[in-house]
Formats: sequence, structure tokens, C-alpha cells
Amino acid sequence: MNWDYLQPVKIRFGKGRVSEIKDLAEAMGCKRGLLAADPFFFTNGLADRIIGDSKGTLVGAFGKISPNPDVEEVDACAEIIRQEKIDFVVALGGGSSMDCAKAAAAAAMTGDSIREYHGTGKVLPKTHLPIIAVPTTAGTGSEVTCVAVLTDHKNQKKSPIVSDSFYPSYAIIDPELTYTMPPKVTAGTGIDVLSHALEGYWSRGHQPICDACAVHAAGLVFQYLYRAYQNPEDEEAREKMCEASVIAGLAFTLPKTTSSHACSFPLTNLYHIPHGEACGLTLDYFARVNKDVENGRVQDFARKLGFQDVDEMADAIHDLKEKMGLRTDLKDLNLTDEQIDELIRISHHPNLENNPVKITDEILRDLYESMR
Amino acid sequence: MNWDYLQPVKIRFGKGRVSEIKDLAEAMGCKRGLLAADPFFFTNGLADRIIGDSKGTLVGAFGKISPNPDVEEVDACAEIIRQEKIDFVVALGGGSSMDCAKAAAAAAMTGDSIREYHGTGKVLPKTHLPIIAVPTTAGTGSEVTCVAVLTDHKNQKKSPIVSDSFYPSYAIIDPELTYTMPPKVTAGTGIDVLSHALEGYWSRGHQPICDACAVHAAGLVFQYLYRAYQNPEDEEAREKMCEASVIAGLAFTLPKTTSSHACSFPLTNLYHIPHGEACGLTLDYFARVNKDVENGRVQDFARKLGFQDVDEMADAIHDLKEKMGLRTDLKDLNLTDEQIDELIRISHHPNLENNPVKITDEILRDLYESMR
Ligand SMILES: NC(=O)c1ccc[n+]([C@@H]2O[C@H](COP(=O)([O-])OP(=O)(O)OC[C@H]3O[C@@H](n4cnc5c(N)ncnc54)[C@H](O)[C@@H]3O)[C@@H](O)[C@H]2O)c1
Ligand SMILES: NC(=O)c1ccc[n+]([C@@H]2O[C@H](COP(=O)([O-])OP(=O)(O)OC[C@H]3O[C@@H](n4cnc5c(N)ncnc54)[C@H](O)[C@@H]3O)[C@@H](O)[C@H]2O)c1
Ligand SMILES: [Zn+2]
Ligand SMILES: [Zn+2]
Repeated sequence: MNWDYLQPVKIRFGKGRVSEIKDLAEAMGCKRGLLAADPFFFTNGLADRIIGDSKGTLVGAFGKISPNPDVEEVDACAEIIRQEKIDFVVALGGGSSMDCAKAAAAAAMTGDSIREYHGTGKVLPKTHLPIIAVPTTAGTGSEVTCVAVLTDHKNQKKSPIVSDSFYPSYAIIDPELTYTMPPKVTAGTGIDVLSHALEGYWSRGHQPICDACAVHAAGLVFQYLYRAYQNPEDEEAREKMCEASVIAGLAFTLPKTTSSHACSFPLTNLYHIPHGEACGLTLDYFARVNKDVENGRVQDFARKLGFQDVDEMADAIHDLKEKMGLRTDLKDLNLTDEQIDELIRISHHPNLENNPVKITDEILRDLYESMR
Repeated sequence: MNWDYLQPVKIRFGKGRVSEIKDLAEAMGCKRGLLAADPFFFTNGLADRIIGDSKGTLVGAFGKISPNPDVEEVDACAEIIRQEKIDFVVALGGGSSMDCAKAAAAAAMTGDSIREYHGTGKVLPKTHLPIIAVPTTAGTGSEVTCVAVLTDHKNQKKSPIVSDSFYPSYAIIDPELTYTMPPKVTAGTGIDVLSHALEGYWSRGHQPICDACAVHAAGLVFQYLYRAYQNPEDEEAREKMCEASVIAGLAFTLPKTTSSHACSFPLTNLYHIPHGEACGLTLDYFARVNKDVENGRVQDFARKLGFQDVDEMADAIHDLKEKMGLRTDLKDLNLTDEQIDELIRISHHPNLENNPVKITDEILRDLYESMR
């Protein structure tokens, strides 16, 4: 088996380490930073604290970022970067803010709108501004991935862009920043971590180092997610979920995600189901679909996590979702036949091709009918 | 818990991939390479084949490298690099050749002998020639580590130098290159892999990503080492041991090795026990010493590998050594009391401080007496 591995992001993990932004910028020789952050942090004081701590190194701020960020938000951020002669970007927030900032830091080096690179296959230039990514959810793992997921609401398109220029220079993972997540966000983003681990593992592009990371991360989610959900101030659970999130990021960035992420895109676009919850919705279903591929390597995965087999693991995923009040079906949407057909059609996203079992229309129909 | 992670080496894994040297050199813009290789490969045709395949990109060769390479060999290699205006180095062989080449590629940027950096604390400059490391044992993991272990035979000193400038630019792991290892070398270098995994895991400097790699690598050693030992042409076993070796390299390069490696240095220096065999000799002993540290995390490790507890794992290590004809004691050396005292004294190498249980003279005496 042939595989190539690269993981260029320097990771700094630990409580309170958000205070190291200034030192890292100095180490990179950067002087004019932009803080691109989730709007929440302009209300709770964190953005101000970070800007103050930076002692003039952060010269601007950008906070117009929505969940599932739009290409127009990226373009607006890129324009500020160009105008203010910014030389590094701090990306603070969940996957939405990090992805917006990553894409803007790359797009700013061109005169183009990010639209030109969104689902077009056009390749972003290699040069990009250095990024310090600071996640506040646990989460997408975007702080260590070469992926930015953007939405073009005008054209009803949600799609990842993949580029080496999206790797941050540094990822600062400071578990304290996640304490303010409401339980519903903890639950959804935490199930996203499990999706990354499982999908990275069973992806047709799987490779050994990522496998090891997937096993590690998934084990932590089963052990700590419910605790973090129940008690937002459970420091150990928060720290372990942050560890799971960044390591699951390593697990999927090279193998790429598969069926659950492919199906999540229409669920988020059409029915506004948050990203993690949308991925989690189909995760146990696809675990069962994929359970016997490649000499039972998914069964091995389940056993390494202490389950008897994949079915027992899938049941545990279902229970976990139920306990945390996440969706386990789509009944409340009263989907029409036409809507089911549309879901099937749009679920044929390129990521679906990474699934080890070929996902046919029949499988997708069975999936969506079972949730109706 | 705070941790920093970095893994800058680009890995290319797979059968036959040694043929990619020329492409990688081109990708780096390099034109004048030196092949620094274990002498064995100048006798079996591999060095000639690599030089031929390079179509003029490799302009020189250096093969005066011994097991446990001497600082003088490093200096000789560095001198050729300077004289021939070499712009990249291919390091082909076991840990000995890779370490010699890595150290030479860094020393060549200075006018100094590598002696100035060997156990002195003096820091090597950041600039160094790009290195493509190509391991032929499974093994040291030196292809992904920032460590070079050198011996100063004149001063009876064996010690690692640690430097960011030792990270190769690329590691090509081609399992086919390991088929020619004789069973004795397979056994010793394979037990070294297990030492790296275990010591990286229980080191006081342990951290999560390395933990995940350690579990993965150790599992493969228990599953495949004996098969590779019994049948040098067992392709699957060879491939899995190569996978174990590089991933164990990731597992220990940041946490660093501990007690077994510390004790290996005098055993190799004074009694010429090969590196891996010397590490393996004390591995089950130290597993038992460390078994209950930090809320049973070493017990967890053993259980993740399918053992009931650390004692059962330690027994398995002992059996594996015995089955492969590796040392399990020092009886044949008829050590005198003075020699035991000397071993105890020299085992107090800095790496010993990384062990999670403080290793006293009493523990070392118990260890060496039990093997006498
Ligand atoms: N780049 C990647 O590798 C990658 C991987 C998976 C998903 N994604 C993308 O990331 C996005 C989802 O990111 P996400 O799940 O992290 O959520 P998010 O960034 O969309 O945030 C969700 C909500 O939580 C709030 N929030 C975030 N952190 C908070 C905190 N600490 N305290 C209080 N509120 C907080 C935000 O304000 C927002 O309302 C999606 O667009 C998804 O497609 C990217
Ligand atoms: N840099 C690091 O991170 C690191 C880690 C652990 C050990 N080390 C060091 O590495 C050295 C040991 O390296 P090693 O265990 O790989 O052994 P080695 O390089 O010393 O080689 C051992 C013997 O095997 C032969 N050999 C190697 N590959 C062969 C092949 N494919 N076919 C036939 N013969 C082959 C060599 O000629 C030599 O005689 C020691 O000096 C040790 O301290 C370094
Ligand atoms: Zn996701
Ligand atoms: Zn070793």
C-alpha cells in the first residue's frame, strides 16, 4: 500500500495558550495582523482581550462571519486584508470563522473573488498569508486541515475547497475557549469530531498515521462528549474533546471525508441543520453500510474502541445522539417524495466517492426513507 | 496538559518508491546530491542502481559508515559535502547511516567538527542541506526524527544530538529495501521499534498524537515482527514492520526515549551489543517498573494491545526476544562487581531522566544483578 503523509501545522495545545498569539506572530516576523473572529467573541470580551494582549500586533478586526460562511463574507474579509496591508491572520471561532479566514488569507493574494475557486477546480496560488488558527468549538479540526468549506447561498452550493495554502502556520488549541459553547453546539460539533474520525478511517484514501489518530480521537469522543454536553465547565471533558477534535482533524485531512459529510451538505443547505448534527444524522447508518469492508478493518476499529462489533458501535452513536437531543430522523420536516428525490440527487457530492462501499441511489433512498 | 507538536517531514511510503529520489530532488530544486550509504549497498548493487536512476543528480557517494557511527565518519562526510559543493544528501541505510548523513548535512554548513556539538549543548545552525532519508532497517525511525546518535569512540561516549536541522525534508520508506536484512538484524532493529513506541508513550514528555502513534506501532510489532524474522521475504510482514518503524519514530521524536535507551548506550559501547538488542534487553524490566504510573496509563496501553495487563505484555516481550535468539540476560559476559558498578554509573544518561519512575542506583543494580 502506497501513502504520502504531510502535517505541516505547528500545534500549541493547552489552557490559556491563546495568550501566545503575539509571540508566535513575532517568531514569524509578522507585524500587522487581522483578527477574523466569530461575532460571538466581540460580545463576550474575548476579541477585545486578544487585541489588547497583542500590544499593537493585531491592527484590525473582522467579525461579519455567519455559520456556513458565504463566499461574499470571504471576499469582504480578503478586501480588508488587501486594503490594510495585513501580513498575518488570526482565525478565531468554530469551523465557520476559521474557514472564512483561511480562504480570505489565500484569496487576498490574488485579485480574484473566492468564487473563482469554489467548486471550479481552479487552483489557489501557493503563497498565502500566515494564519494562526484558534478553534473555539471541538469541532471541525479546521485548525490543522487544508480544507475550507464555503457556501454560495446565491447559487445554493456548499462545497469544500482543498488547498495546501489553507494549512495554518500555527494552531493554538486552548480548551478554555470552548467553555462558553452552549450544550446544543457542544453536542453537534462533538458528533462532527466522531464523523471525522470514522470517515477518515473508512475513507478509500485511508492511511496508517491517520488511522491511528482516528482510533484515538473516536475513543475520546465516546468517553468525554456526553460529559462536556452535560456540564459545560467540566474542564477534563472539555480538554479531552479539544484533543479529540484536533487529532480527528489529522485523521481526515488527507484521507478526506465520505458519505456522512456528502449527505450533510444538502441537509444543511436545504433544511438548515447545523453541520455536525447533519453529519451525525447519517453516521450510524453508514457505519452499518461500511462495516465489513477490506477484511473487516471497520470491525477492528469498533473492537479497538471496546465495542463487540460495528453494530454495537452504531447503536452507541445512535444513543449518544438521542441523549444529547440531536436529530435521529427527519420526521418533523414532513418531506415530500420530491424532496426525498432532491436529497438523493444532491447527496451525490464528490466526497461520496470516497466511501468504501459504492453508495447508490437505492442506498440513499433507503437511508432517507428510514428517516422520514 | 500542555503540549507542542510538529512533524515537518514529508513521508512517501510504498514498495519501489526509492525510484522517486530524482523527482523529489527536482521538486526541491536540487542538482548536486551525495549518496551517503551503508557499505552493504555498495556490494549488493543498490547504490549503483540509485546513482544510475538519478541521471546525474547524485554526483558523489560516501560509504565509510560503521554501525554506531563515529564522529570522525561524520566529519569525513561533511568534508566531502563542502568540497563537492553538494546541495542535498540522500541518507540510505539503517539508523547508523541516516544519523551520520543527517549530522554531516548539518555540520557541513559550519567549519566545525561535529565533536563541538556532541554532548556539549552547543546548538547547530538552523540552515542545513536538504536530506532525503531512505531507511533500510525497520528500525530506528531516524527518517522522521530530529535526533542523530553518534559515538565518539576515542572518548568512549555515545550520545544523541537533538536539532531541528536534523529533520529530513523527505522520508522514503520502501519496504523492499528491508528484504535483505538478515534475521538477526530484523530481530534487533524490530525490538528497537517496540522500545521507541513504549518509551515514547511512557516518557515524562508524552503527548497525545505520539501516544496514538505508539499504540499503533507497538500493535504491529507484536503482530508482524516474528513473521518478518522467520521469513525475510514475507512481504506483508516487512511492509507492516516498516509502517511500525516510521510511526514509532513519530511516537518518540518529541517525547524522547527513556530508561531502555539510556541503558543501551553503555551496553553498546562497552559490550558491543547492537543498538536494538541492547534496548530490548531491558524493555520488559522497565515496563514492569513503569506499569502503574499516571493513573494506569501504561496498563491502558497494554490493554489496548489486547494484553490483560502490563505484566502479560512484558512476558510477551520476553518471549519474543527468546524466540528470535536475542539476549535476555548478560550471563555470558561474566560481569565482575566492578563492571556492574560501571554499568550502573554510565546508565545515568540524560534520557534516564525522561523515565516516569525515578530510576535509582538501587533499581539499576537490581536490573543488572538479575541479568548476571
Ligand atoms: N475546514 C474543515 O476542515 C472543516 C471540517 C468540518 C466542517 N467544516 C465547516 O465548519 C463549519 C462548522 O463549524 P463549527 O461546527 O465549528 O460551528 P460554527 O463555527 O458554525 O459555529 C456554530 C455556532 O456556535 C457559536 N460558537 C462557536 N464557538 C463558540 C463558543 N466557544 N462559545 C459560544 N458560541 C460559540 C457560533 O457563534 C455559531 O453560532 C461548517 O461550515 C462546516 O462545513 C470545516
Ligand atoms: N536517530 C534516531 O532517531 C535513532 C533512534 C534509535 C537509534 N538510533 C541509532 O541508529 C543506530 C542503529 O541503527 P540500525 O539499528 O538501523 O542499524 P545499523 O544502521 O547500525 O545497521 C546494522 C547492520 O545492518 C546492516 N544493514 C542495514 N540495513 C540492511 C539491509 N537492508 N540489508 C542488509 N543489511 C543491512 C548494516 O550494514 C549493519 O551491519 C545506532 O547508532 C542507534 O543508536 C538512532
Ligand atoms: Zn465536519
Ligand atoms: Zn532506538
